[in-house]
Amino acid sequence: MNLLDRAKTLDAGDPLRGFRERFDLPEGVVYLDGNSLGALPKATKARLTDVVAREWGQDLIRSWNSNSWIDLPQRVGAKIAPLIDAQAHEVIACDSTSVNLTKLIGAALGLRPGRRIVLSEPGNFPTDLYMIQGQEMAEQRLADRSKLIDALDEDVALLMLTHVHYKTGAMFDMAALTKAAHDVGALVLWDLSHSGGAVPVELNESGADFAVGCGYKYLNGGPGAPAYAFVAERHHGDFRQPITGWMGHKAPFAFSDDYEPADGVDRLLAGTPPILAMAALDCGVDLIAEIGMGPLVTKSRALSEFFAAAMADHCPQLECVSPADPARRGSHLSYHHAEAYALCQALIARGIIGDFRDPDILRFGFAPAYVSFEDAAKAVLALAEVLDSGEWDCADFKQRAAVT
Amino acid sequence: MNLLDRAKTLDAGDPLRGFRERFDLPEGVVYLDGNSLGALPKATKARLTDVVAREWGQDLIRSWNSNSWIDLPQRVGAKIAPLIDAQAHEVIACDSTSVNLTKLIGAALGLRPGRRIVLSEPGNFPTDLYMIQGQEMAEQRLADRSKLIDALDEDVALLMLTHVHYKTGAMFDMAALTKAAHDVGALVLWDLSHSGGAVPVELNESGADFAVGCGYKYLNGGPGAPAYAFVAERHHGDFRQPITGWMGHKAPFAFSDDYEPADGVDRLLAGTPPILAMAALDCGVDLIAEIGMGPLVTKSRALSEFFAAAMADHCPQLECVSPADPARRGSHLSYHHAEAYALCQALIARGIIGDFRDPDILRFGFAPAYVSFEDAAKAVLALAEVLDSGEWDCADFKQRAAVT
Repeated sequence: MNLLDRAKTLDAGDPLRGFRERFDLPEGVVYLDGNSLGALPKATKARLTDVVAREWGQDLIRSWNSNSWIDLPQRVGAKIAPLIDAQAHEVIACDSTSVNLTKLIGAALGLRPGRRIVLSEPGNFPTDLYMIQGQEMAEQRLADRSKLIDALDEDVALLMLTHVHYKTGAMFDMAALTKAAHDVGALVLWDLSHSGGAVPVELNESGADFAVGCGYKYLNGGPGAPAYAFVAERHHGDFRQPITGWMGHKAPFAFSDDYEPADGVDRLLAGTPPILAMAALDCGVDLIAEIGMGPLVTKSRALSEFFAAAMADHCPQLECVSPADPARRGSHLSYHHAEAYALCQALIARGIIGDFRDPDILRFGFAPAYVSFEDAAKAVLALAEVLDSGEWDCADFKQRAAVT
Repeated sequence: MNLLDRAKTLDAGDPLRGFRERFDLPEGVVYLDGNSLGALPKATKARLTDVVAREWGQDLIRSWNSNSWIDLPQRVGAKIAPLIDAQAHEVIACDSTSVNLTKLIGAALGLRPGRRIVLSEPGNFPTDLYMIQGQEMAEQRLADRSKLIDALDEDVALLMLTHVHYKTGAMFDMAALTKAAHDVGALVLWDLSHSGGAVPVELNESGADFAVGCGYKYLNGGPGAPAYAFVAERHHGDFRQPITGWMGHKAPFAFSDDYEPADGVDRLLAGTPPILAMAALDCGVDLIAEIGMGPLVTKSRALSEFFAAAMADHCPQLECVSPADPARRGSHLSYHHAEAYALCQALIARGIIGDFRDPDILRFGFAPAYVSFEDAAKAVLALAEVLDSGEWDCADFKQRAAVT
């Protein structure tokens, strides 16, 4: 059986195949970039129309009570919680991943007085490292991932890592690293941006202290969707964070001059919640929660296994830089090629959307809720044709856009 | 002529009367709370539908380039700039007012090494004070507004004030206070949340250093809309801010390990811009920019003058706590009454939406783009009836909601 026929057979037996219809995917496009921006759930269109026209337009300010705008951050957080092995009251949706990192680095330093070091790895997603560098109270220490455990000592306040690497897809052993950090009295913060909604995450099982994650990737919350943050219940009484906005106050509408933190993760709120964006995230999370993590993980691994094998057959000249074992990687696969940018553009011209990561990585994401085996097969076959034809080798495809 | 007829005559001669039709206001409602949540511009509905269905749904990740998502924060900032006497490249739309305060307090402390004090007034909008309290590097000093100039000394890094007071509507003399702060070497940050789009703001004329403002009040950007931030050009080379996210990096898509700030206000960006919310803000700002600040200020003053005079005639038992001179107040009027909460609820039951501010303030906002003189007259007459009938004096109207 040829690749495309095998893919169609796999799709026919896929228990998630019905969920693809719940997304509004463009005709003629193979979308393998849901790890960067998730697709649009059809339900989101109706929900946004209602939030804009009725909740905002007609109910106006009353919606904070009548349409429960005020607790949307907590309600969305509670729906995300089971996807990442957290309790409902340990997660809240708010701000961006970057802003939430600032809050939780501050929280960690506050809980470990006398320690200033935040340990991470070089090549972590840039915003994570930049957030350490921006904090006057923090000192950055970097160690290659194989040497992280050796780099842990009693000066380390926080071990801060991205669970699934944005470029390679390599996944850390959350339990082992969390334990190693705790052994020296350090806290741990996991960035779940490339994990939540795609791979198994065991925050409480592994004893993690903090986590942040992205709303616009596998949770399909829309471009620049609010992020989420997790704080383990055992820290709820003690932790403080530096972005002490009025929505994180114990009694925001008492308008007191003195800040008093709200209970638990509510104190992570800062400004007024962005309702339009939060409603879109709510729809995205609803759909992922409806499918459930078990089926999503099974599908993700099957898809990436299928793609990896097909690539080895049809495009052997591209070197895979992601771990071979699907249990040790996220839901995307990355390939090294000196002309990765032009290859990516040539694929996009054929309606195959993956992405490029500087300087030489071609990345394909397999959002298990809507990507089909047929999508994966078409991408591999198109890439083989692009390589074979040399069509990528032209000025148009080499000209870098503002966002790469 | 009775009050309502006088109002109708004024409406007939109002050069802005046509703009009311550009908003989607509910039938049978008098909306005097645009100072808390601005009304829905009709154009926003179509724009959001397009951003969701086409830009996100169909164009997906390509929209960062093809639909110019990537520079929406700068483009919206440039449109806000002329409303607040700033240059286009001095303003950027991003995050919440609270988060932007954290950034700019950090920026001010960085520019004034050796000084730790941030001076403000008691009773400032809470988030402003809380943001000072959250910063380890900052020390809060409060002085009553009449004593602020005396409280300025060479320990003060930053004078941080809300231009128009959220409760009383009292407006600071921006030029005088900015000069006084500069005289002791301090910087100045103005919170324009209750000013931008409603009252004259002269940031550059007065020599202000920094400002923040709200997108969801007079700019009609939608619930929890992104905020904006201003940094005077003369600081663009030197200022740093602590929330050093990847979108504020000089080359975000180079994915370097080391943070290097982008030029000017671009370095105020942190995470990925919230596109749905930013598009709604863009529509709101477009409409206000189309009207222009001159006509808006004239209408705002005429409306609040009309309302204040009518209140003095029809509801003399309520004490106005806002300045009598319209040139010294914002676009809202506040009244003291021990039962302000119940009065507010009784008015809402009659379709007259103002708001309540703890503990005893009834507040009416006059968003000049869509509030009519007839709205103002109806509100006064309804309040007179509510007071006269005593209908406010019941358990339903005294029961506090979650958001007040």
